[in-house]
Amino acid sequence: MTAELNTAPASRNLAIDAQRLWKTVERSAEIGVGRPGGLARLTLTDDDRRMRDEFRGWCAASGLAVTVDGVGNIFARRAGRDNSLPPVVMGSHLDTQFNGGRFDGILGVLSALEVMRTLNDRGIETRRPLEIAMWTNEEGARFSPPMVGSAAFAGVHPVEWVHARKADDGATIGEELDRIGYRGTAPVGGRQFDAYFELHIEQGPELDARSIPVGVVTHGYSVHGFIVDITGETAHTGPWPMELRKNALVGGAMLCVAINDIGWKHAKTQGKATAARLVAWPNKPGILSDQAQFTGDVRHPDPATADAMRAEFHHAVRDAAARSHCEMRIADEWKWGADIFDQSMVSLVRDTAKTLGIPTFDLPSQAGHDSYHVAKIAPTAMIFTPCRGGITHNNHELTTLDESVPGVTVLLHAVLARANR
Amino acid sequence: MTAELNTAPASRNLAIDAQRLWKTVERSAEIGVGRPGGLARLTLTDDDRRMRDEFRGWCAASGLAVTVDGVGNIFARRAGRDNSLPPVVMGSHLDTQFNGGRFDGILGVLSALEVMRTLNDRGIETRRPLEIAMWTNEEGARFSPPMVGSAAFAGVHPVEWVHARKADDGATIGEELDRIGYRGTAPVGGRQFDAYFELHIEQGPELDARSIPVGVVTHGYSVHGFIVDITGETAHTGPWPMELRKNALVGGAMLCVAINDIGWKHAKTQGKATAARLVAWPNKPGILSDQAQFTGDVRHPDPATADAMRAEFHHAVRDAAARSHCEMRIADEWKWGADIFDQSMVSLVRDTAKTLGIPTFDLPSQAGHDSYHVAKIAPTAMIFTPCRGGITHNNHELTTLDESVPGVTVLLHAVLARANR
Repeated sequence: MTAELNTAPASRNLAIDAQRLWKTVERSAEIGVGRPGGLARLTLTDDDRRMRDEFRGWCAASGLAVTVDGVGNIFARRAGRDNSLPPVVMGSHLDTQFNGGRFDGILGVLSALEVMRTLNDRGIETRRPLEIAMWTNEEGARFSPPMVGSAAFAGVHPVEWVHARKADDGATIGEELDRIGYRGTAPVGGRQFDAYFELHIEQGPELDARSIPVGVVTHGYSVHGFIVDITGETAHTGPWPMELRKNALVGGAMLCVAINDIGWKHAKTQGKATAARLVAWPNKPGILSDQAQFTGDVRHPDPATADAMRAEFHHAVRDAAARSHCEMRIADEWKWGADIFDQSMVSLVRDTAKTLGIPTFDLPSQAGHDSYHVAKIAPTAMIFTPCRGGITHNNHELTTLDESVPGVTVLLHAVLARANR
Repeated sequence: MTAELNTAPASRNLAIDAQRLWKTVERSAEIGVGRPGGLARLTLTDDDRRMRDEFRGWCAASGLAVTVDGVGNIFARRAGRDNSLPPVVMGSHLDTQFNGGRFDGILGVLSALEVMRTLNDRGIETRRPLEIAMWTNEEGARFSPPMVGSAAFAGVHPVEWVHARKADDGATIGEELDRIGYRGTAPVGGRQFDAYFELHIEQGPELDARSIPVGVVTHGYSVHGFIVDITGETAHTGPWPMELRKNALVGGAMLCVAINDIGWKHAKTQGKATAARLVAWPNKPGILSDQAQFTGDVRHPDPATADAMRAEFHHAVRDAAARSHCEMRIADEWKWGADIFDQSMVSLVRDTAKTLGIPTFDLPSQAGHDSYHVAKIAPTAMIFTPCRGGITHNNHELTTLDESVPGVTVLLHAVLARANR
């Protein structure tokens, strides 16, 4: 708890303009409309450009200084009293999945905007400057891997590597940044954040089930992800004997089933495992496939169990290779989550809510978030808000203004406290 | 054995021009080059058009009357003494798989051309007219289903239905026929063939292993094919509990593994089963897929066992639906093979070879062929020639001039016998 928050009781009554916030959420929901109620606003498409333009306009109208970096991350800055200090940053993303919802990521960016607007309304200055960060390609729906904008900012991937990522439609991130006019001139990363806050819908059922408006995110699930390249041999689906077959599609399918079984094995202790993607070639009637690529992950709240699940998957790869007579190679493997958040930041979120009389619940994040990368370079915390039934990455993803306002209020006050430190 | 063949001993010495035949095979191998040694001449592409143009040119130069029907099947006719009689037809296809070889289908069409050229050289007239048939989309590599040109000719599918078949690249058969100029004006089917002969590489190892140059195809494997639509629900790959997941990709993968297991179960009695194709949507990192489609088949030389394999697959669909919590619907199911060939035609092939002193081996066809459809409307037989190790639908598919000539010679003499009947 900070001195400012305790010694300025008036600020406890500082409230956001909930209707204004919701108007921006509803405007966003008109851009890149997907299935009924949902969005399909894929990264660096024309719809993404429209949303970025709209967001940039809102920021400029609020007097924020907008910059775009070399991978399309957008930053909107509000000056502080001492602009030599690193900024306190709030952020998330505006892109969605193919069958995405209206809130995932979006609520975090627009809440940050609402924080800025509220401070403007009241003429409140902060000691440190504030920024909104809008990260490119959080979802990874069009370009793999996900969270690539924040990763580049945190120095996890070189910028050129990010530019070369290719979508299934053939376009690269670099080309699409140029096409939609969002390859900015600001350097990617290389500067300090005082702190980073990300408000996000929970994407799980805990808060909704408990009717608690704010989740204090204590840590992330420990996640191990994998891309496996599978090499077989084309042959005729008719005469070619079973003993000689090396069907890469079958090898990949074995991995899908095996990783799903690993998830079930650990389901009682909240483990999850996913077959997310399988692409085979030629993948056509009449011919056995000689190439396939599998993408999936395992995750668990307990890092040791997540490690065990990883080992089980490695074993499954060897087993599937033997049974399908295909060669398998783990082409890429990544890890995120576990104890990534700054505990003083986590405490600040919890204590701010307490001071405001807002009930909270401690819980881990199960999904990946830009916060995970930013946490590598700055003290970071996340604030979860409820979403109905935990449904997400689905057009039925739902939250309401009333369910969201407490979390945004905590964001406002936590940011103020940190910025006036 | 026919009177003509017995009473005209001179004709026994009638030989094809092997070098000329091979020159056409080598020219074909220059059009639509794929991986080293192979072809990727997909139906109704520009490469297919180039090959069709070349073939049409060869036919015209040999004085054959070329017609093209409404689904792009090409017929090249050589007049007989009595042109009121239905023609004796030889044929196959010129399209290939994505990773196809230089001989599959192609050798049959070009052998038919060589038969025509040989008869021209010797000034041999036949009682019945002769035709070459070049069928559209035998492979089914670009458009599903395979063998669609011969199927339309045999009245299995309406012409409009064939025109509406769509490739993964978005084009329809109708549009592509127009684009490459092969939507002909001849009616599709509706006319009689006296008989149909198809020479084809075996696409299995039997002739090569036995060093026997000609396979007499007695019947087809009994094949049951399936398309299964799988419906799940999108959700987040992270927080969504295993118990609630309906991952259509996992459901489809279970079918791939199950059908492969069915193949292994019957492998000792020459059964085969194939997971040929699995397409999921969105099929991306971060999201569970809510749609998938599986394509595969089971086949066995014994029709009763093939029926049992079909029942096993139906059971596997119910089981995979229950285990993956997805809905599964068998959207399409087809059957081909079994006792489709005319036994007098099969005997004619066997007896012709015997008369010529060419060793033969009786065997079933394991692959699908245009013959299967043509057999529904005309007495049909197939002649197999060896291919190295049985390798096919692969750029390493290989046969030689010496291995092919005996089969083409049998084709020539069997056709002559039938045409002079």
